[in-house]
Amino acid sequence: MSIPEQVHGEDGYLAWLPYRRQETAEWLKRYKAYRQIVVAGAPEDGGAAVIHSAAAELARGLEGMSGLSAAVVNAGEVPDSEAYIQLALFGSNPEIDGLFPEAVITEIGAEGFAIQTDAHTGRIVIAAAAPAGLLYGAFHLLRLFGTGQSVNGLNIRENPVNPLRMINHWDNMDGSIERGYAGKSIFFENNRFKADKERIRDYARLLASVGINAVSINNVNVHKQETLLITDEFLPDVAEVAAIFRDFAVKLFLSVNYAAPLEMGELPTADPLDPAVQEWWQHRIKDVYSAIPDFGGYVVKADSENRPGPFTYGRDHADGANMLAEALDPFGGIVIWRCFVYNCKQDWRDRKTDRAKAAYDHFKPLDGRFKDNVVLQVKNGPIDFQVREPISPLLGAMPSTHQVLELQITQEYTGQQRHLCYLVPQWKEILDFDTYLKGEGSTVKRIASGELHGSRLAGIAAVSNIGDDTNWTGHLLAQANLYGYGRLIWNPGLTSPEIAEEWIRLTFGNGSEQLIRTVQQMLLDSWGIYESYTAPLGVGFMVNPDHHYGPNVEGYEYSMWGTYHFADWQGIGVDRTKATGTGYTGQYAGSNCERYESLETCPDELLLFFHHVPYTHKLHSGKTVIQHIYDTHFEGAEQAERFAAEWEALAGSIEEGLHQQVAERLAEQAEHAKEWRDRINTYFYRRCGIADEQGRTIY
Amino acid sequence: MSIPEQVHGEDGYLAWLPYRRQETAEWLKRYKAYRQIVVAGAPEDGGAAVIHSAAAELARGLEGMSGLSAAVVNAGEVPDSEAYIQLALFGSNPEIDGLFPEAVITEIGAEGFAIQTDAHTGRIVIAAAAPAGLLYGAFHLLRLFGTGQSVNGLNIRENPVNPLRMINHWDNMDGSIERGYAGKSIFFENNRFKADKERIRDYARLLASVGINAVSINNVNVHKQETLLITDEFLPDVAEVAAIFRDFAVKLFLSVNYAAPLEMGELPTADPLDPAVQEWWQHRIKDVYSAIPDFGGYVVKADSENRPGPFTYGRDHADGANMLAEALDPFGGIVIWRCFVYNCKQDWRDRKTDRAKAAYDHFKPLDGRFKDNVVLQVKNGPIDFQVREPISPLLGAMPSTHQVLELQITQEYTGQQRHLCYLVPQWKEILDFDTYLKGEGSTVKRIASGELHGSRLAGIAAVSNIGDDTNWTGHLLAQANLYGYGRLIWNPGLTSPEIAEEWIRLTFGNGSEQLIRTVQQMLLDSWGIYESYTAPLGVGFMVNPDHHYGPNVEGYEYSMWGTYHFADWQGIGVDRTKATGTGYTGQYAGSNCERYESLETCPDELLLFFHHVPYTHKLHSGKTVIQHIYDTHFEGAEQAERFAAEWEALAGSIEEGLHQQVAERLAEQAEHAKEWRDRINTYFYRRCGIADEQGRTIY
Repeated sequence: MSIPEQVHGEDGYLAWLPYRRQETAEWLKRYKAYRQIVVAGAPEDGGAAVIHSAAAELARGLEGMSGLSAAVVNAGEVPDSEAYIQLALFGSNPEIDGLFPEAVITEIGAEGFAIQTDAHTGRIVIAAAAPAGLLYGAFHLLRLFGTGQSVNGLNIRENPVNPLRMINHWDNMDGSIERGYAGKSIFFENNRFKADKERIRDYARLLASVGINAVSINNVNVHKQETLLITDEFLPDVAEVAAIFRDFAVKLFLSVNYAAPLEMGELPTADPLDPAVQEWWQHRIKDVYSAIPDFGGYVVKADSENRPGPFTYGRDHADGANMLAEALDPFGGIVIWRCFVYNCKQDWRDRKTDRAKAAYDHFKPLDGRFKDNVVLQVKNGPIDFQVREPISPLLGAMPSTHQVLELQITQEYTGQQRHLCYLVPQWKEILDFDTYLKGEGSTVKRIASGELHGSRLAGIAAVSNIGDDTNWTGHLLAQANLYGYGRLIWNPGLTSPEIAEEWIRLTFGNGSEQLIRTVQQMLLDSWGIYESYTAPLGVGFMVNPDHHYGPNVEGYEYSMWGTYHFADWQGIGVDRTKATGTGYTGQYAGSNCERYESLETCPDELLLFFHHVPYTHKLHSGKTVIQHIYDTHFEGAEQAERFAAEWEALAGSIEEGLHQQVAERLAEQAEHAKEWRDRINTYFYRRCGIADEQGRTIY
Repeated sequence: MSIPEQVHGEDGYLAWLPYRRQETAEWLKRYKAYRQIVVAGAPEDGGAAVIHSAAAELARGLEGMSGLSAAVVNAGEVPDSEAYIQLALFGSNPEIDGLFPEAVITEIGAEGFAIQTDAHTGRIVIAAAAPAGLLYGAFHLLRLFGTGQSVNGLNIRENPVNPLRMINHWDNMDGSIERGYAGKSIFFENNRFKADKERIRDYARLLASVGINAVSINNVNVHKQETLLITDEFLPDVAEVAAIFRDFAVKLFLSVNYAAPLEMGELPTADPLDPAVQEWWQHRIKDVYSAIPDFGGYVVKADSENRPGPFTYGRDHADGANMLAEALDPFGGIVIWRCFVYNCKQDWRDRKTDRAKAAYDHFKPLDGRFKDNVVLQVKNGPIDFQVREPISPLLGAMPSTHQVLELQITQEYTGQQRHLCYLVPQWKEILDFDTYLKGEGSTVKRIASGELHGSRLAGIAAVSNIGDDTNWTGHLLAQANLYGYGRLIWNPGLTSPEIAEEWIRLTFGNGSEQLIRTVQQMLLDSWGIYESYTAPLGVGFMVNPDHHYGPNVEGYEYSMWGTYHFADWQGIGVDRTKATGTGYTGQYAGSNCERYESLETCPDELLLFFHHVPYTHKLHSGKTVIQHIYDTHFEGAEQAERFAAEWEALAGSIEEGLHQQVAERLAEQAEHAKEWRDRINTYFYRRCGIADEQGRTIY
């Protein structure tokens, strides 16, 4: 296997898998021995391809890092050196099984792995119950190599915490990507599948390297052409893509149009209780599974933002989802049913309707009514992926219903990959949030993993941030979000700094400690900084309509989307209390309800989400709301300038191409942060007439 | 000639030329004699077609109105009756010349006409110096018939007041129309000319019927494909369209891309002083005139809203325009050069730059530098076709330069043909405005007509409001704007009520006096009503960005387009005074400058265009600014509801199809006017906290 030319390229295509040459004598001395990968116990079925992927990746990685050739050796052959890497399934080789105590073998689940170093020979054994585990183990080992960690005395046991670890693509067949900020689709163009599939293979590798095991390839807003993905016209193409992902243990899902039988002109209705409709879907699903025997299932956005759904026929979402689930059940497929349901034709004059309450109000009463192969997908916040939102009270609130947490990697409201915004700290906060649903410690991560309610189907899904830009994510540093997402949902116990450091070392190498620390700190600070110069105190949606980029304080104030802040000459915020507001706080369990209800205890960063307060209201920080707005916006813009300067200082320690592309984005961010600062500050100053205590320029 | 089926149709396609059956016995008795049209003195050249159009239109009209057949009789033949209609060119027939005193013949210009009734025989003679005059005379006579006026003892002498009477189309070759609200282009589709030209012929008839004599068929924003209109690829198509318009005495113009030689890849520059560029244009123009010998010339939007222009090469607009004019001169063509030049990348934080000043600042210093076949096209206001703007101070300010006034028929900022807004009263105000440039009476209409400065090239152009909607204008009543535009610029002495009544009688017939009075009052009130519930007191641009439909008070407040109102908690408006503001008032001559400069004399309706005042400022009306805003918005929305009710009451007196299409638009308007009312009132109430004196609902 030759080292790909791009290894030392400067375009970011290799992302965190460049397998950079590790130049230190120390490294070479320690690791150059590992140049053979011995595979034991490959099964005859599809799993063999996954194990092959694992072995090939090890060879590729070792070659890249050592600059020496590496080879995969068949199980029967004797390797040249005692210090080789062995991939083996439990039960396939008594010698391997003997290395691990019975308890270890039992504790490793279907996707888990164990890694052990033989102290005498240096041999490293990666063992797993199934091929996927070997693949994850291989990437794990490569990560240890790539981040310069010792592989002596390894004694690792890993299982993913979340069963479903999914990426949702919002790709359309015309090649566009809804909320995509890194070019066009890698799957589709001109209403067809792209002929070139090499990019999909590389993408599958990236996903597998961080433990992703499921992908939906088309937008949840399923338009005319995409409705046909489940028909013979496109199933051969879908199967081809599924086969690529299969080699990397990633299951393929499709988003479907709930009105498909109607819109394809085959039936006069899409009523889920109509036997003809049920039969139609059963028939379709047989076709799908004929083409893709391990097809994952359907992702459905129904009765949401003008998409069709069961409401049209006077049915509820349980009726709607169960009909599809019934059809998928014989094949082991599942329905992932999104809970993003609200009135998107709201009259802004109506202050009683509260979009934040909608998902809970729609779905909570249906608990227990869903079939066992339905899983509800719930966005982390009650509105829509804002920079700062409280946790959706629907999460965990349906103990008899499977749920998946939905996050957004694509930076729709967090700078659209033109601003730096490392989202792992946000996700950590979400996962660590205590819902108190079953007493203290009822954290979102225990809900997502299925542990809290003992759910069979559980996990996390997130909207992809990649496109066909050479570096995948537009902003090179936005790769850290895709990487971080995978790593975090594999193990929510990992910390944001740990994940950041891993990504930096893998991407830029271990050569410069200054680089590692600088970029790590930039990543860790970036969410807070983005928040500081954009919408303040949890208020949200102060963005330009439609595309959602850039400041526009009143952009959504008089819209039909249920997104208001009610700023007037005296104050701002949405009163969502039980006492005087919309009553949304009442959807929270335990002390959360009281915490948000009371001005005394509501956290500053969510104040305007829950309360309408005067500009002169004192925050817990001791500042008034208005002075907080001014201060954070001035400081945030300064911090954005600092990013650009700090990055500039790293010029010598990063390949020029990589350095340059980030420098351009950071320069844009610094400029655009000033625009945010000035528009937000000016808006509020013109509203209330209260001067900045420090007398800084407001227009 | 048979009566077209649509005559009694209900789709509005026939517009104001349905030639409805005049049912009264009185009418039939009086007019049924006129069933023969005798043509005398048709020239051999292209003019014959124009005279043919005139005669054919008379026959068509008379047949429609009488329900009897009519015929065109050759000059030599003897008509059946003495009461026929005769079309004759002066000098072609001594008997005709003898009917008119020498003074009359001298006074009728190239496009004028005389109409005379022979008291003994009833014969009506339409005489003119040239074929176009006969065409206009024929339509004039048909208008008299159609509006039920007497044609006994006619003694009419008409000349158009404005030499150039033009329509600008903003049609793109992909079929879209920039700022079009009535469907797609009638000229283009799929980047080609449409095959079916019948619609263009009917359009040419409509234009000729109101005296339009020039049309440009493509958008002033000339994109890639349209750049090729002046090449062999499309000239045959252009010539075909020109031939249709020629039959109706309408000259064809094209908008050109100033960077054409560069963008077509033929030259490395578009510098107007580069001999190769000059030669390129000369070469192109030869091709154009080979195809279209009476081609009108070029319309140019240069250095405007990101369009290329001479600035790129360090040249000014005189250099730019003169280069094209030089090339057109040998063929008698002209350059119509738009003055819509301003900085469209303004920083909203910069309060010194004032878009209102830009056109004057750019062009005034160039007076006298333009060639004699260049005419500058100046928008009526200094900004951009708002509901209410002051008159552009550039109009008439360049005594040694030809100017054309530009109006906008398409309702970009005036309700987009979904709201009723009869624009003739607005245009009347513009035309009657006294600039004082050469003392009292230096009205805009005298500038537009060329009279004030004795300009050879002068007139009025306006952006078309038609598309391929069956009824041409989307809103049926918006036809009155196209009709009214033509009639008004033929004779600015006509009044708004007169023009409205003509249009109503021609369109809906003379059958119901209640209908005529109701619709006339609706038309006359509509501009004021639209103004009352939209942007107040001349402030402008409180619309949604890009598409410009619907209220958005801050939609353009922080934009780069130079469109701000600076509303804060205390007041609103743009200080454009010399004393404390941008100094824009200084561009006005005579007492206008002082009138706008002073709060005492500035008219209420333009107050916020010229001054930043507190919400508590007292208007001349005696109301405060804020109470004026509340009152006009509540009243305006009520008036919009009244429209719908009044129209409803006419149900029996209009064909159901016509009635229904207007009823739908008026219902939408009534609803949308409430949205305007509530958003504007709420915005201002939330700004200033001053309650409505009448305690009406503000959200």
